[in-house]
Amino acid sequence: MSILVVGSVAYDDITSPSGTVKNILGGAATYFSLAASYFTQVRVVAVVGNDFGAEQESVFHKHGIDTRGIERAPGKTFRWGGTYADNLNEAKTDFTNLNVFEAFQPQIPKGFKDTEFLFLANIQPTLQANVRREMNHVRLTGCDTMNYWIQRTPKELAETLKLVDLLLINDTEAKMLASETNLPRAANKVLAMGPRALVIKHGEYGATIFFREGAFGIGHHPFRAPALPMDEVKDPTGAGDSFAGGFMGYLASQKEVDREALKRALFYGSVMGSFAVERFGTEGLQSLSRPEIDARFQIFRELTHLQ
Amino acid sequence: MSILVVGSVAYDDITSPSGTVKNILGGAATYFSLAASYFTQVRVVAVVGNDFGAEQESVFHKHGIDTRGIERAPGKTFRWGGTYADNLNEAKTDFTNLNVFEAFQPQIPKGFKDTEFLFLANIQPTLQANVRREMNHVRLTGCDTMNYWIQRTPKELAETLKLVDLLLINDTEAKMLASETNLPRAANKVLAMGPRALVIKHGEYGATIFFREGAFGIGHHPFRAPALPMDEVKDPTGAGDSFAGGFMGYLASQKEVDREALKRALFYGSVMGSFAVERFGTEGLQSLSRPEIDARFQIFRELTHLQ
Repeated sequence: MSILVVGSVAYDDITSPSGTVKNILGGAATYFSLAASYFTQVRVVAVVGNDFGAEQESVFHKHGIDTRGIERAPGKTFRWGGTYADNLNEAKTDFTNLNVFEAFQPQIPKGFKDTEFLFLANIQPTLQANVRREMNHVRLTGCDTMNYWIQRTPKELAETLKLVDLLLINDTEAKMLASETNLPRAANKVLAMGPRALVIKHGEYGATIFFREGAFGIGHHPFRAPALPMDEVKDPTGAGDSFAGGFMGYLASQKEVDREALKRALFYGSVMGSFAVERFGTEGLQSLSRPEIDARFQIFRELTHLQ
Repeated sequence: MSILVVGSVAYDDITSPSGTVKNILGGAATYFSLAASYFTQVRVVAVVGNDFGAEQESVFHKHGIDTRGIERAPGKTFRWGGTYADNLNEAKTDFTNLNVFEAFQPQIPKGFKDTEFLFLANIQPTLQANVRREMNHVRLTGCDTMNYWIQRTPKELAETLKLVDLLLINDTEAKMLASETNLPRAANKVLAMGPRALVIKHGEYGATIFFREGAFGIGHHPFRAPALPMDEVKDPTGAGDSFAGGFMGYLASQKEVDREALKRALFYGSVMGSFAVERFGTEGLQSLSRPEIDARFQIFRELTHLQ
């Protein structure tokens, strides 16, 4: 199987208590692709500027990621700068230069149209919906969004949510989207908006998947995966996108997407998130191996499973 | 086996989004005792005033809790009033009348001296240490504390921590005690202060147990238990003490306190916490059965365990 991701490719400047890096490769689609590439064939649709060269592209190619959908536009690549304080939970944005990303109109290469798994990273909801509608062979669509779209384009987002199977957001976003402070009640409201399952990410506490009654199997009990207690988080940037990449990538590698597959996928999402934050930028995702990933999966299992 | 708990018995006034109750039985030792009573024989050491009558005492007796250690002092019982806002994570204290609790000097009845399990609920650290020193047959001591003692009596608390096997605190308290924002690093610092294992409670995200290297078994990998995603938390009061009661009570029922027993205990702690918050005050703990508790344990297992 293969998976197509639509989202941002960017250059980031990042400062955390562990140091500062500048002009490193980032963006949601980048983190997602690298994380997913350990499980399945990945196709990226994104836009970059003239400053995106062979060196950057080779990061994708080394992982067999198909970059035919990365459009070159005149101008500069999206740039973002952020600083993490001591608690590392939230970045203070130092600057956001959308550059070529501002006018991004995703173009799906013809050769990508048969892709069966789709991930709509965090872009404007109508663009997400357009991509979904263009992909006629898709079996499963995952989607991300953020507070900006929840607050500014609620109608457009509502339309998009009707078209997706899985939504992956964090606690704050779920509560904001549902206008509800209780998490399980918020989850139920979000599930009523369209997705068949909702993954809520709790940062250092892991993630919970909520199912719509009867979706992907029987019942509606949620399931929780932990995050790894880590002595040092170097750079939280891309943790959520790496989570999504592990989660969706694993699903795309499975014959059947049932509840057990979704539960294991939640673990693989957490695993990939843990690798991402151990190093700056995408460094933690660049030279892994599947046995290394499965060894960490085992650590996550031991962290939560009784004998 | 039996367990002795030293702590507060109180009357509470509580307001939450689900309603208001007044003059209900509360206090750390009360929640702890009731939760632990489903697993083992419980002995309480506390102080109450003239306003504590047969009706209140019968709540303990119905659960076979030995109340010979509840001292009657002239004056009124400890009273606390609190209000929970929408997020239910933290109570705003409306009033605290320590009353007879202010001069509490725990007296251990002679018949309690052979108790092998001990829980020092949240009282002044020197009182905790004195009780521990008096109990010569104790195999395992659990301990709670709070920000007030961490900030005001750090030396006394440090002495107490040298005498206990297990410390049960929340994220904020752990970080404050260790002067460290990273949780696993904070845990290691706290373990260096004395306890062989540290349980950090994450509220709606569950709890993690950290082990000192080699304590209770091999290795030093932590273990996480979830909390139950709940549609309605009526009253979070006593959740931590109920957690401690389930955790310690289960341990006291086991032949051997090894890592596997501690992991299961962490689940039982979460289970008892979940029952406590479903209803106001101690109501959620008053009429349970062991099969009901074990059925919920099974739900917690399904919430986290892959097939």
